[in-house]
Amino acid sequence: MRDADPQQAALRIRAGRSPLPAVSLKADVPLLDRYREFLPITDATPLITLGEGNTPLVRSTAIEHELRAGALYFKVEGANPTGSFKDRGMVLTIAKALEQGSRAVICASTGNTSASAAAYAARAGITAIVIVPDGYVALGKLAQAMIYGARVLMIRGNFDDALALVRTLGEENPVTVVNSVNPYRLEGQKSGAFEICDALGDAPDYLAIPVGNAGNISAYWAGFVQYRAAGNATQTPRMLGFQAAGAAPIVRNEVVPNPETVATAIRIGNPASWHLAVRARDESGGRIDSVGDDEILDAYQMLAQREGLFVEPASAAAVAGVRKLVRTRQLDLAGRTLVCVLTGNGLKDPDRAVMLSGDAARVDPDIVAIERALGWV
Amino acid sequence: MRDADPQQAALRIRAGRSPLPAVSLKADVPLLDRYREFLPITDATPLITLGEGNTPLVRSTAIEHELRAGALYFKVEGANPTGSFKDRGMVLTIAKALEQGSRAVICASTGNTSASAAAYAARAGITAIVIVPDGYVALGKLAQAMIYGARVLMIRGNFDDALALVRTLGEENPVTVVNSVNPYRLEGQKSGAFEICDALGDAPDYLAIPVGNAGNISAYWAGFVQYRAAGNATQTPRMLGFQAAGAAPIVRNEVVPNPETVATAIRIGNPASWHLAVRARDESGGRIDSVGDDEILDAYQMLAQREGLFVEPASAAAVAGVRKLVRTRQLDLAGRTLVCVLTGNGLKDPDRAVMLSGDAARVDPDIVAIERALGWV
Repeated sequence: MRDADPQQAALRIRAGRSPLPAVSLKADVPLLDRYREFLPITDATPLITLGEGNTPLVRSTAIEHELRAGALYFKVEGANPTGSFKDRGMVLTIAKALEQGSRAVICASTGNTSASAAAYAARAGITAIVIVPDGYVALGKLAQAMIYGARVLMIRGNFDDALALVRTLGEENPVTVVNSVNPYRLEGQKSGAFEICDALGDAPDYLAIPVGNAGNISAYWAGFVQYRAAGNATQTPRMLGFQAAGAAPIVRNEVVPNPETVATAIRIGNPASWHLAVRARDESGGRIDSVGDDEILDAYQMLAQREGLFVEPASAAAVAGVRKLVRTRQLDLAGRTLVCVLTGNGLKDPDRAVMLSGDAARVDPDIVAIERALGWV
Repeated sequence: MRDADPQQAALRIRAGRSPLPAVSLKADVPLLDRYREFLPITDATPLITLGEGNTPLVRSTAIEHELRAGALYFKVEGANPTGSFKDRGMVLTIAKALEQGSRAVICASTGNTSASAAAYAARAGITAIVIVPDGYVALGKLAQAMIYGARVLMIRGNFDDALALVRTLGEENPVTVVNSVNPYRLEGQKSGAFEICDALGDAPDYLAIPVGNAGNISAYWAGFVQYRAAGNATQTPRMLGFQAAGAAPIVRNEVVPNPETVATAIRIGNPASWHLAVRARDESGGRIDSVGDDEILDAYQMLAQREGLFVEPASAAAVAGVRKLVRTRQLDLAGRTLVCVLTGNGLKDPDRAVMLSGDAARVDPDIVAIERALGWV
């Protein structure tokens, strides 16, 4: 028995009291507790959890060689409770809303944010309200928010209209806005950087990450800086951010009125954390670049077929971007360690997978017919 | 710095050699390595990984009270790399296939098994072949297997026909069958039991689990028995298995020719591990019972709306079953610890979520209209 006192642990269980983990699996320590000294947690903050964070850091077996990198790792954020990195920030945001006595939260969203808000609100026993622009959203995309019991209202208008309404509603009513204008979102997302440092023993040389609303690159940078300042890492990485070519306001240095890309999670023309992202780029000695949809879908398929990692298209943007920089000799990773953040689960967008894969072959239920179809005879 | 020797860790990274985790997050130790002494691992077994296992054990906040249980935990297996518990067995199965020199694997499947086989085959750089019964499977269900690059062949016939063909193909060709007739599948799935014991400090009093092909209940039981024998737990749990009422061959003690249930992952009329499951039930002093689709869907919605856990319908069968036993006073959980295994991710079956949730409300893009729709004014 690895437990120092197994009988006591067993007794705790039998007595029905909350059994504390005797052998600590990190997964069983809530994220908010594990990194409480680095987060705005007080004794009054409820340490709610759905098992977020502690996501796998998976070593590349194929792309690492193509990039001639010293080491390439993928931070698999799709393993989070609602299938995206948003859970890291949302758990803190909802905890702080609870601490402040809020009984309802609201957001404008068409995807991952609404799912995460709805899940943690359900967990906390409070109401989640999601305002979505009608016509911009397939009903399937809202399946998560709806099954978690969020109140979903569709309005005529675009995302900016929805967000403006949400902000006004938040000012005039006792409801907490949990879009990324809420600072706890980025605070919680710093934990991704902490985990990477803990797993590697130090910060990597480079961190590659998709850039949409630009909050995640900003949060990771803040996390790396904080961890180095605390003596938990000896360096900070160069931050490599990638936007989709049709939605690249930071690269073009101008707002994109009608952003377009297959990577819907980063289809944003006027990022909320624009200036923070530019600062992360400049302070880290990194860069923010763009990649075309073809390159994104190519990386998306390569991740699935060569690495066994099924991600949503936006997650492939960072991998596509690094491949482009290496191929055009703008980046040399020899002897360097690179971490690519894979932000969301491929199951979020199954239609894309079906579309790219085509149809399955039909054959007769016969051994020879199957062997022939497989080219074995 | 928590690392004993940060400089050295940093140097390892910069030198491009594989940096060993300095601060060990359990997620970063491959499952096969973490439990190698309890698994058929040899020095020649490649320790492949996609970050499987180490899934969250989440304490209930709502259903625990309803059940008047001492403690209720959910083992959230949807956090695995392909979104189901199948990854625990498949990682070992593919590793052993590699060890034995296999360059291709084959399975008959309509769902989670094919996704898992395809992902680990992609990871290992070998071919995955999936034989599916045409007409029984929506194309969307195969999105995962296809995007991972598996060769998918549809045959006329039912699942039993597909499996029979697969077994013959496996006998006559150099291809490894990775359906659950392959014993490494159940060996790997034991790791779920190990993790629960490690997290709680001992085995729980009860383990509730859905029963389809009956492999998972058998694997968990074998894992608990092995862990107790090794001195890592002082007890074994009573095993509570639940089939869907329309697919309950073990409960009825007869093959069900045309099984039917909304819980497609356990829609099986003639389970492969039937006798092992009966043994697990009897040796543990547990029971195997059935629940109706209404009860399953009720638990499915309750898990999402009260606990914040979005699972596939089959996963809700165990929760539904325990609720039924407690409600009918066949089970008293006072002072007892119960773990429910939630076998798969809700994103596997988004249509079900949409179907149950209905449509979103449409309102004018106007503060008063929204406040009225929310009942605030």
